[in-house]
Amino acid sequence: MRIVIDGMGGDHAPEEIVKGAVAAARDIGDEIFIVGDPAAIRKQLDVCKYEGNQIQIVPAHEVITMRDSPVKAIRQKKDSSLVVGLNMLKNGEGDMFVSAGNTGALIVGSRLILGRIKGIDRPALASIYPDMTGGDPCLLVDAGASSESKARNLLEYGLMGSIYIEKVWGRDNPRVGLVNLGAEESKGTSITKEAYQMLMNSQLNFIGNVEGRDVPKGVCDVIVCDGFTGNVILKLTEGVSLSIFKLIKEALKSNAKAMLGGALVKSKLSGLKDEFDYEEYGGAPVLGVSGPVIKMHGSSTERAVRSAILRGLPYAEENVVDIIKEEMQDVAEFIEEE
Amino acid sequence: MRIVIDGMGGDHAPEEIVKGAVAAARDIGDEIFIVGDPAAIRKQLDVCKYEGNQIQIVPAHEVITMRDSPVKAIRQKKDSSLVVGLNMLKNGEGDMFVSAGNTGALIVGSRLILGRIKGIDRPALASIYPDMTGGDPCLLVDAGASSESKARNLLEYGLMGSIYIEKVWGRDNPRVGLVNLGAEESKGTSITKEAYQMLMNSQLNFIGNVEGRDVPKGVCDVIVCDGFTGNVILKLTEGVSLSIFKLIKEALKSNAKAMLGGALVKSKLSGLKDEFDYEEYGGAPVLGVSGPVIKMHGSSTERAVRSAILRGLPYAEENVVDIIKEEMQDVAEFIEEE
Repeated sequence: MRIVIDGMGGDHAPEEIVKGAVAAARDIGDEIFIVGDPAAIRKQLDVCKYEGNQIQIVPAHEVITMRDSPVKAIRQKKDSSLVVGLNMLKNGEGDMFVSAGNTGALIVGSRLILGRIKGIDRPALASIYPDMTGGDPCLLVDAGASSESKARNLLEYGLMGSIYIEKVWGRDNPRVGLVNLGAEESKGTSITKEAYQMLMNSQLNFIGNVEGRDVPKGVCDVIVCDGFTGNVILKLTEGVSLSIFKLIKEALKSNAKAMLGGALVKSKLSGLKDEFDYEEYGGAPVLGVSGPVIKMHGSSTERAVRSAILRGLPYAEENVVDIIKEEMQDVAEFIEEE
Repeated sequence: MRIVIDGMGGDHAPEEIVKGAVAAARDIGDEIFIVGDPAAIRKQLDVCKYEGNQIQIVPAHEVITMRDSPVKAIRQKKDSSLVVGLNMLKNGEGDMFVSAGNTGALIVGSRLILGRIKGIDRPALASIYPDMTGGDPCLLVDAGASSESKARNLLEYGLMGSIYIEKVWGRDNPRVGLVNLGAEESKGTSITKEAYQMLMNSQLNFIGNVEGRDVPKGVCDVIVCDGFTGNVILKLTEGVSLSIFKLIKEALKSNAKAMLGGALVKSKLSGLKDEFDYEEYGGAPVLGVSGPVIKMHGSSTERAVRSAILRGLPYAEENVVDIIKEEMQDVAEFIEEE
């Protein structure tokens, strides 16, 4: 496999990106291309004392920043690391693209440069979501690629998420749940009601509606929702978790007895915090475009970059894009019939 | 004030409802009417050793259950505690109605029996939401009265929530925030973008968009969102909080050192849990209908019932319904102009 990495995207680029690539290179034999400012990347490779030829530098002299408007940036910054990297995928010079850059630009770029898979109306961002009861994490689709979704988009999310989990995570017959405001099929908006029926009539292992309180409890493998709801779920989960851990930290400093107890439980509580650590799980795949693209968190450090590469690799190796293409032929007919 | 209570609504009716009413009666001089099965209510009043005449029983011989379809129940169960109670408000025999019964039926009943305030397109359920940084709680509108909202509904929620907080909680110039997937005004769905402009052009103290991660941080007094999103936010917050507290409890039992530490921090952690205790804050007002209606949690116990009555009382005393009516005359013109 030829892994292409956006060397200039993210808060800690190129330093942490290069470090993560070097760390990943120790575990795999695949070629790694880091796209971006050659001097800056070379410098960081030297800092890492990297001397092999498994990692190569691909020059790109522009950078898409977080403040850039996605569509404009893709059209105008042709020599940016993000556009150059996606073009390598398109031209068959790479098999997977990984970036911690501007999320909107990465999604728009994937759609414009790689193109949508035939039959997919809206590509989606699939984010890893923890199971707070201690089980394996699940996949939340859409995490914010679109802000509005039609019922057929929700069906597509369920389908793509299922295939990804089966092929990349090796989990059989993934359970698909639809985020809704009640468990009954009669509940929800006109869109969730229609999506419920489409999911129920599909070949997916659809377990029905999932209420907000069950989202963190690992009740399904693929959590399907529109991108607005997905964005709120991810950020709210982060906000509530961090707020509680902060309150606990403060409470455990409030008097001598609590401080002593706090010292004794410290390692246990840090362990818990790690369970919600997105860095370990790898990046978020962009699903529905004609090539394996992985979005890393903007603040990704070495460890997150390494995880994103290693855990994302089966997205390319298992030909997940081709499998989605095949499945969509059947589903497209099914959607037409509906 | 004449407070009317649904004696038969909720998981622990009539026992806990009656206990809560008796507890509230000790703190206020207002008349309390408990509507429902006279024998069952009388029996519970005897259990509470209540002998005064501040609390009176109003007979109603039907009960709307959680499984009843709201519209059908309101139309058919004319002698239910919920319908009889709402009719007392309508006929001027009561000044406030409090119920822990079927939420959908209470909202539909309020709309059909009391009627909407002129200019209000959609009544809303306003739920109390904790500030997890330790500050005063805020109000989330809509918590699920409607599953879909237009931009003008979101403006109405902001307006009604502001008035409620100002008059009932005595908080000046409440800050209004709009739940959205990004902070910038260009972000979101077509509806949130339109609502952003309407809120910005209104007389409200609009602070802009609020992302999921900031919702639990007390950044505003009124959190405005559609009822679908509101329902997900409330239930997800509950799910994440409870899951974390459960994980902590388990972690603190895992070995001898952690158990000792756990014993020392136990009271601190229980204290934290209380901060998220909805029972203490009182019930959720139904806003936008022509009478003060308060929804209590279905599993309300004595303490929750007492809080809902005491904390909800200013909703009636301060003539909040009349103030919303007046304000809506101006806003209705403003909405027409838009």
